[in-house]
Amino acid sequence: MNLQFPTIIVNFKTYLESTGRKGLDLAKQAERASKETGICIVVVPQFVDLMKIAETVEIPVFAQHIDPIKPGNCTGHILAESVKDAGAVGTLINHSERQLKLSDVDSVIALAHENGLISCVCANNPSVSAAVAAMRPDITSVEPPELIGSGISVSIAKPEIVTDTIKLVRKVDPKMTILCGAGISTAEDVAIALKLGTCGVLVASGVVKAKNPYSVLCSFAEATKK
Amino acid sequence: MNLQFPTIIVNFKTYLESTGRKGLDLAKQAERASKETGICIVVVPQFVDLMKIAETVEIPVFAQHIDPIKPGNCTGHILAESVKDAGAVGTLINHSERQLKLSDVDSVIALAHENGLISCVCANNPSVSAAVAAMRPDITSVEPPELIGSGISVSIAKPEIVTDTIKLVRKVDPKMTILCGAGISTAEDVAIALKLGTCGVLVASGVVKAKNPYSVLCSFAEATKK
Amino acid sequence: MNLQFPTIIVNFKTYLESTGRKGLDLAKQAERASKETGICIVVVPQFVDLMKIAETVEIPVFAQHIDPIKPGNCTGHILAESVKDAGAVGTLINHSERQLKLSDVDSVIALAHENGLISCVCANNPSVSAAVAAMRPDITSVEPPELIGSGISVSIAKPEIVTDTIKLVRKVDPKMTILCGAGISTAEDVAIALKLGTCGVLVASGVVKAKNPYSVLCSFAEATKK
Amino acid sequence: MNLQFPTIIVNFKTYLESTGRKGLDLAKQAERASKETGICIVVVPQFVDLMKIAETVEIPVFAQHIDPIKPGNCTGHILAESVKDAGAVGTLINHSERQLKLSDVDSVIALAHENGLISCVCANNPSVSAAVAAMRPDITSVEPPELIGSGISVSIAKPEIVTDTIKLVRKVDPKMTILCGAGISTAEDVAIALKLGTCGVLVASGVVKAKNPYSVLCSFAEATKK
Repeated sequence: MNLQFPTIIVNFKTYLESTGRKGLDLAKQAERASKETGICIVVVPQFVDLMKIAETVEIPVFAQHIDPIKPGNCTGHILAESVKDAGAVGTLINHSERQLKLSDVDSVIALAHENGLISCVCANNPSVSAAVAAMRPDITSVEPPELIGSGISVSIAKPEIVTDTIKLVRKVDPKMTILCGAGISTAEDVAIALKLGTCGVLVASGVVKAKNPYSVLCSFAEATKK
Repeated sequence: MNLQFPTIIVNFKTYLESTGRKGLDLAKQAERASKETGICIVVVPQFVDLMKIAETVEIPVFAQHIDPIKPGNCTGHILAESVKDAGAVGTLINHSERQLKLSDVDSVIALAHENGLISCVCANNPSVSAAVAAMRPDITSVEPPELIGSGISVSIAKPEIVTDTIKLVRKVDPKMTILCGAGISTAEDVAIALKLGTCGVLVASGVVKAKNPYSVLCSFAEATKK
Repeated sequence: MNLQFPTIIVNFKTYLESTGRKGLDLAKQAERASKETGICIVVVPQFVDLMKIAETVEIPVFAQHIDPIKPGNCTGHILAESVKDAGAVGTLINHSERQLKLSDVDSVIALAHENGLISCVCANNPSVSAAVAAMRPDITSVEPPELIGSGISVSIAKPEIVTDTIKLVRKVDPKMTILCGAGISTAEDVAIALKLGTCGVLVASGVVKAKNPYSVLCSFAEATKK
Repeated sequence: MNLQFPTIIVNFKTYLESTGRKGLDLAKQAERASKETGICIVVVPQFVDLMKIAETVEIPVFAQHIDPIKPGNCTGHILAESVKDAGAVGTLINHSERQLKLSDVDSVIALAHENGLISCVCANNPSVSAAVAAMRPDITSVEPPELIGSGISVSIAKPEIVTDTIKLVRKVDPKMTILCGAGISTAEDVAIALKLGTCGVLVASGVVKAKNPYSVLCSFAEATKK
């Protein structure tokens, strides 16, 4: 499966506002915003909510993480095959809240590929983004951890992180799809992220904790068109 | 919620034989075996399959693991609240394939308790079992890792691990519910585990990979009555 | 080797004030304070400084950590045999800044025992302390992490953590040697820790970062006599 | 400090044959072999042995690992400043037996640089080697873990891993110094590694467990001249 870009990826994390029935409702709002604006919106629910959400909405669903494992004796781990089977079309990898060893990032990109899952690998700065790009995932996303959940957008507070990432990643792989995230909470944050040269954004609390996620997502989606 | 003992806990691990539709089918066979024999059988599916299985069967469903986290910024982790919300009534903790730091075992037992989840903490030997018991989970289960998946039953190959566990755990907590697991694959393995003084068994490949899990589970359940 | 109690254990951590030549000097001050007061003072330097300090001072030297490994292919890890060979007579285990999986705490206690190293296992609260005691180390030390490095002494701010630890640990092992630590920075903090029923204290920044560690240690040592 | 190439890096790991007095003796043999052949030989002892070895021999000494930490509250960890202070001129990073999270590899390369330590980062395959190179260490070393300690040399059994690594790394950084390791145990293994285009080799058991490490090292050093 291929995503359509620009893309807005909504990470549900482990907020109570995006757990269970509330998570399903949030996914439906994302679907409605996507249909109305024509912009691709991806939802990234918690593992236990993934299957029901994937069965209910028609927009792409990603897992938050998969483990570097093969089927078998791996109690408590996340198997690529299971996530795919439950309806995910892609997965985040190495999110700053769920980091992997370097060699495991490489293994998990391969597992995602083998299972037909889009791989979106997160990095904390430009040089790590270049390292990620060297391992050929489908998407590289840069997110400075100090801004995650801050409400201060990377695209406005640290645009050089985004532009340096693009520069270093392009040297390694001129065609890599690059996203950015951290602190994105307004349509302007999104618009600037796109102007800096990214193909989209990762958002979380700015949407999940919004009073009206649907209208926030519509404004984000419209902002990608500017 | 309280379990009824003796209990057979079926850990689905990450076997393909217990993933997705096959996992749902396996849970149904466990339910049928439980109803027919009157013995409590708990199923422990993968995270992404948990909600659907909990919605479908009436026997108790456990999670394979929960993380020592609070709701919020924990991408890729397992939140007690989510697992509970999805229909789990308990959780394995510190399985030998998903071990935790000592202080996290304590934190996760508390999280399980706060969320009304039965805590079944695994230990690899008698002294670690005693350590677990000191942190007051609902259930302590001893499983020597070298026998896990071996087809050689702990109750037959290393009965002293079971009896030493019972002895050391009883000193710390005379009322602790104690299970054992590792390599259990025949009705006799189960019967002996109970005779050694446990309240039940943890099983995995012996059931998950059986040609007829239903009949295997019936034979295990009957063996607990002897 | 047996320690003499009461004992003051000085953890050098990775402070620059206790690195290299400064670490050696600090160890000499501890030795002088110990000789003058007659109270046992243990120094716990960084790994690279351990051998020289053990060769230079006559007071007991502990390692800050050992790994759950056997000799061989363990690049970058801490081998019990090496630490012993370098002159350590004991080791901290599971310090809150270097925590271990539950089963590894048990393995490392055994490794320390096999190598003739005194095992001092740290715990963050009373129930974890009881769990530690169940694995039979030589010493159990309780240190609430929120007070570590705070300058607010556990013995004064949270005496109930110390007394609850003593109560729970005694149930598991009536003869266990119990220490406490976290925020201890005055002679009074030490005196109260002893009055609460401990056999000594773990200190770090209160000594390492003091202008005159020697005189601070003398005052701590005298306080244990009250 | 700059190394002279070709270089042979001797990882002492945690073998008893390279612990304590035996480690010091091994380092002296390496020094003698280096002086006699004129080829740079680096020794990589265990942490507790590092200072004495660095004080005794005149060849370069590396640490086996450093942690992604700043001075302070990091009990049981390896501080770059301490390792430097003890006489190391460089460090292995991300050895397959001591792997780091991706972002920590980047942090530790920076710490090594700030402290004037040569950074030699290990990778398990060509794509991970390219990722490493993107983070600009001084040296990238490829070591397929399945051959480590096997006695079967990467340069002979899997030369394509070496040549693919060189190709992918050169794309990212045309000037990167590339080494290889795993299973190297004869002079021919070394000679072929150099012919494939590397600047040297990492060796361990082939030297540490040899009856006469000095003569083995001499033969390795001579082989680099062919």
